[in-house]
Amino acid sequence: MIQPRDNALVVLSGGQDSTTSLYWAIERFGRASVSSITFDYGQKHRIELECARNVAAAAGVANVCLPIDTFAALGGDALTDAAVAVSDEADEETELPVTFVPGRNLIFITFAAAFAYRRDARHLVTGVAQTDYSGYPDCREATMAALQEAITLGMDREFMIHTPLMHRTKKETVELAVQLGALEAMALTHTCYNGCRPPCGECQACRLRAGGFAEAGVRDPLLDIR
Amino acid sequence: MIQPRDNALVVLSGGQDSTTSLYWAIERFGRASVSSITFDYGQKHRIELECARNVAAAAGVANVCLPIDTFAALGGDALTDAAVAVSDEADEETELPVTFVPGRNLIFITFAAAFAYRRDARHLVTGVAQTDYSGYPDCREATMAALQEAITLGMDREFMIHTPLMHRTKKETVELAVQLGALEAMALTHTCYNGCRPPCGECQACRLRAGGFAEAGVRDPLLDIR
Repeated sequence: MIQPRDNALVVLSGGQDSTTSLYWAIERFGRASVSSITFDYGQKHRIELECARNVAAAAGVANVCLPIDTFAALGGDALTDAAVAVSDEADEETELPVTFVPGRNLIFITFAAAFAYRRDARHLVTGVAQTDYSGYPDCREATMAALQEAITLGMDREFMIHTPLMHRTKKETVELAVQLGALEAMALTHTCYNGCRPPCGECQACRLRAGGFAEAGVRDPLLDIR
Repeated sequence: MIQPRDNALVVLSGGQDSTTSLYWAIERFGRASVSSITFDYGQKHRIELECARNVAAAAGVANVCLPIDTFAALGGDALTDAAVAVSDEADEETELPVTFVPGRNLIFITFAAAFAYRRDARHLVTGVAQTDYSGYPDCREATMAALQEAITLGMDREFMIHTPLMHRTKKETVELAVQLGALEAMALTHTCYNGCRPPCGECQACRLRAGGFAEAGVRDPLLDIR
């Protein structure tokens, strides 16, 4: 029997990966033990927040949206700064994608832990993956291991960060979604860096997603929305 | 010669410890390489932000204030939640002080790193101390070591977290401030949990501060402001 402390909190962006991770958590911990948290960090594509709400509702779990105004105040990245265009290009100096928001996943998971701390949950679930990871260093397994130690020591509570997609390719993530019964929910998700729905099909995020579905031989239900 | 990457960013709360750490950083890295960052996280005592500005101005370094609205949205702690009274009591369940904001220092330092990332600085300086640490687990050396690894891996940049006060008692911190020429600046700082200026002298923070000055045999200039 699952104890209160075995409650799980899923960081849900409304995208393909976090949605798949939500269904993974439901299978692993049971629907009644799972809730989700979404961060409004000033992302240009507000539709992500609506997608997260819709996904959580379809999955039958609670969804809380917490504001983070700090990234927009920091500025300089393509996801929150209106002056920086989303592109496939890397920053000349750092060689990281212009869509890199420094520390984004560290902050998300630390705030998720602070929220879980107040709600007596200790399992944190995130859809980060180092396979196909698009050059984001905060998605790596070593980063998550260090972060798990930092939040466990920093809040004096034994948190576990679960990363069910860490070593899965996009193809394998699609296969997992099918296996978990999450395929239908994929129609509710958002992936496109250009904020398009149906997806633009041109940006790096759309191309990665389309590649995964193609390799898995599965039709992406997002392509059939009107 | 100090390289641009040897720039230092001090997390400045406007209190005694972070002010002493600022002067430590100025001696260690040189005034021209040091700047400071302060977080407006919805603290009840807004005077802290003004104190941080005044301290930075007196020390001759830049001060940037970044907003963090997330802690107030989380609620439940005595420093940001109007419904929770500041007291010396511990939370019945966790045995941590009611003034504990889960993850506060983790978040501050991660955002400081994100800011430093954009400004080509890699030294982060914080006044946390595990001696006399009042029961805050996010002030411990082990927490800081894990966090340093998480931000270094997560942003792919070799950050160093400096904690000059980590093993100093309050008495030794006062002695360090005297040695660094920071005593006068102590009149500009804020410590009191009750938001009083001059200090209430009754709360735990005031008593800790007064004890340190008394043991060091130094008159706290904050007591002489009008």
